[in-house]
Amino acid sequence: MIRPPADPPPPSPSRDASAVATVGDLSEAELLERVLPLLVRPADRHVLLGPGDDCAVVAAPDGRFVVTTDTQVQDQDFRLSWPSGVVTTGFDTGVKCAAQNLADVAAMGAVPTAVVVSLTLPPETPVSWPEDFARGLTAGFAAMGADRCSVVGGDLGAGRELSVTATVTGDLEGREPVRRSGAGAGGVLALAGSTGRAAAGVALLDDPRYRPGADSALDELARAQLRPCPPVPAGPAAARAGAAAMIDLSDGLLRDAGRIGAASGVVVDLDGAAVAALAEPLRPAARLLGTDPRTWALTGGEDHGLLAVFPQATPLPEGFRAIGSCAPAPPAHDGPHPRVLLDGRAPDLALGRRIGEGWDHFAP
Amino acid sequence: MIRPPADPPPPSPSRDASAVATVGDLSEAELLERVLPLLVRPADRHVLLGPGDDCAVVAAPDGRFVVTTDTQVQDQDFRLSWPSGVVTTGFDTGVKCAAQNLADVAAMGAVPTAVVVSLTLPPETPVSWPEDFARGLTAGFAAMGADRCSVVGGDLGAGRELSVTATVTGDLEGREPVRRSGAGAGGVLALAGSTGRAAAGVALLDDPRYRPGADSALDELARAQLRPCPPVPAGPAAARAGAAAMIDLSDGLLRDAGRIGAASGVVVDLDGAAVAALAEPLRPAARLLGTDPRTWALTGGEDHGLLAVFPQATPLPEGFRAIGSCAPAPPAHDGPHPRVLLDGRAPDLALGRRIGEGWDHFAP
Repeated sequence: MIRPPADPPPPSPSRDASAVATVGDLSEAELLERVLPLLVRPADRHVLLGPGDDCAVVAAPDGRFVVTTDTQVQDQDFRLSWPSGVVTTGFDTGVKCAAQNLADVAAMGAVPTAVVVSLTLPPETPVSWPEDFARGLTAGFAAMGADRCSVVGGDLGAGRELSVTATVTGDLEGREPVRRSGAGAGGVLALAGSTGRAAAGVALLDDPRYRPGADSALDELARAQLRPCPPVPAGPAAARAGAAAMIDLSDGLLRDAGRIGAASGVVVDLDGAAVAALAEPLRPAARLLGTDPRTWALTGGEDHGLLAVFPQATPLPEGFRAIGSCAPAPPAHDGPHPRVLLDGRAPDLALGRRIGEGWDHFAP
Repeated sequence: MIRPPADPPPPSPSRDASAVATVGDLSEAELLERVLPLLVRPADRHVLLGPGDDCAVVAAPDGRFVVTTDTQVQDQDFRLSWPSGVVTTGFDTGVKCAAQNLADVAAMGAVPTAVVVSLTLPPETPVSWPEDFARGLTAGFAAMGADRCSVVGGDLGAGRELSVTATVTGDLEGREPVRRSGAGAGGVLALAGSTGRAAAGVALLDDPRYRPGADSALDELARAQLRPCPPVPAGPAAARAGAAAMIDLSDGLLRDAGRIGAASGVVVDLDGAAVAALAEPLRPAARLLGTDPRTWALTGGEDHGLLAVFPQATPLPEGFRAIGSCAPAPPAHDGPHPRVLLDGRAPDLALGRRIGEGWDHFAP
């Protein structure tokens, strides 16, 4: 069972003394000296040369590697402080950075091997922030089951707003990458991890009616937004089990299932009962905020669950549950058709404008 | 001969119509649709899967890859507009992004293979900016001799300030990486590319006395800041020729030579006559601004030249010129000693406080 990383250990007295210092008080070299030791993980022989030179050198045993990059910007991808009074820590941001990037690698069926990370920090940022970020990143690797992954390099710089970019590489272990385009009619749609929890969490964090600490079910949803914890080993497990298509569920079930449908030339039909079951744990938040939990389950991203299609009759690997199936796409001369259905019908528009759109960085 | 990339072709009429549009007017998908085609380069068989899925897949024929990452932030690493009236274009930023990252790969003796790039753009950014960025990036690859390199993925997001992070991977082609730590006493210090030109350029751009277009020698220096063009193939050539140590000259000759000295346990002695020759092309700018051009040659980074140490009597590969030598470090019990000398003596402090410090992102 994959569990989100717990809080970091309380700061040692030596750190307490420095907690008042800001990034602007230190040189780049001094800051690196404090952050780098926090990124060290048990030596792994696939890191052939770690941080400290112009580049790191990483092993790619099967002669290939997968690579992806993802950025989080303050007030766009996370808030430093929320209307509910919650504060996003460096630790939270480190965990989220790991989740976003590792899930993309897992969604190809690959095992994450190495991360390079660039931090842009306003000079007034407390030094404890990048320190906690480093702790969150490595705690995230461990909690998500990315045992072989470590930070091999990075860049530190100043800016007016806080932003984090990580690039992760992965090892396909000799297998073909699992693409979005391989699903066939009759395939079983299955999910590892959750959906909608991070969306319920952001709704709670954004609302003063949510009081942190008063209800553990709500706190858990808020934590799914702050520290998502995707089941990274489920990606390679799906590939080994013969997954035909896979995607990181980062933009919502409808949108990402639609992407598999479009890339594979099939129609993905979601099972309404399965969606209702996925929405069930979101009900306490929906009750508090007066919304339909199915909207979060269908359109909420950021949990970074893994959505895969397995050929019919393939036993699902551990951690996956069936939530739908694939049907042949209607002939092109019948005109445009939806790529994703709910119980055989186009999803209810009353669920909101966000359906089928998910998250768009530039949407007004 | 490596030449900086020329201006992009004038916009086509269809682009003109859109030049007024801003990034905030488009969805992320629409923006990607406009930018991705500009990143396409001649198909290369080492890109096994290009952009469009959760990850790209890149070949690593010798079972390893090198990786590095670098961020540029508006008003920190570049200015959008300068006191001299010059405006930094998206094309400039794309070229500079390529230069910074490719030089790090070259400095390991590797051949750049793949880039992932993340753009954070304020919503009011004209759509032509990321389009020109993409053109500059690919023009940079071509101008710098990185023929095998292409963009395989990325991330687009919104933020309050413009920032660009690229991560580049490279192929060592079966050779050992050339580290900073391999220099030995008697080794010859040699430079491929330039030093101080980008620093002279930033001094010009920052000064209203510089009038763009009035003096081609000055314009060329300004261009070295806006569009640095490191000799990327000189990196693998140095490795093939037997270079013992190498570094990307991004923080200034004194600082980066000192890094080789410290990592290798030698003292690097710069040849004063060679430094004077490197300062010669900077003289027109020094005359206009009333400074000593040697300061730029010794402390200016951002040209991204390659500084290598070759074993004595090794014929220098094409593009490298000898600029110093390595001597044994004094015994440790003699106390701290400078890692870099100029004609056998500690560098003149009159050259300014910046000597031996180079560029630091967080320095006050």
